[in-house]
Amino acid sequence: MSTSRTGIDDVDPAVRAELTRLRDSIDNIDAAVVHMLAERFKATQQVGRLKAAHRLPPADPEREARQIARLRALAEDAKLDPAFAEKFLNFIIAEVIRHHERIAEDSGTGRTAGAG
Amino acid sequence: MSTSRTGIDDVDPAVRAELTRLRDSIDNIDAAVVHMLAERFKATQQVGRLKAAHRLPPADPEREARQIARLRALAEDAKLDPAFAEKFLNFIIAEVIRHHERIAEDSGTGRTAGAG
Repeated sequence: MSTSRTGIDDVDPAVRAELTRLRDSIDNIDAAVVHMLAERFKATQQVGRLKAAHRLPPADPEREARQIARLRALAEDAKLDPAFAEKFLNFIIAEVIRHHERIAEDSGTGRTAGAG
Repeated sequence: MSTSRTGIDDVDPAVRAELTRLRDSIDNIDAAVVHMLAERFKATQQVGRLKAAHRLPPADPEREARQIARLRALAEDAKLDPAFAEKFLNFIIAEVIRHHERIAEDSGTGRTAGAG
């Protein structure tokens, strides 16, 4: 397994301490994001139930276009790659649409994706 | 463009108000998450620079396994699908590794992904 690269155990203790400090921050941020996403899905589950009850389509391309434009602008302000922010939102929306389809199927008003 | 489904403009004002309320919460959460992710990438950029300077490999499978196990547990507590939390982390890590490779290339110690 030896390569020309050094392993984490071979590095200077000061470097290792700095890496640990950064990783602790990353872990804190991840915990916060997971809890935010849990809250986000609670809201989208409610949207899904509302849409199913009123026979609204699971996907809403106009709303999504507005969300993408807004998040790209917010990302730019926060110095986050706007292309990544868009990819991220699409990743989340894909999951939400899967949830909405499941809710629509469960409530007996189910139709396949994009049919509305 | 008419289908058997109703459009957002046709629904009861009370339903529309409820949908707007939920969407406002989703937009607030998204803004928070975008800012958290901007902060996360600042930390991982520093990790990337540290790794490149000390010739550490961009990817760290053991660290990733620990992160995944931890996030799945946090997700479960927050009633978020642990499988989704894992998929989410993999999505973020893929972007981070891309950044680290770019940093390694820029600093002239670049090797291809996974070679370390």
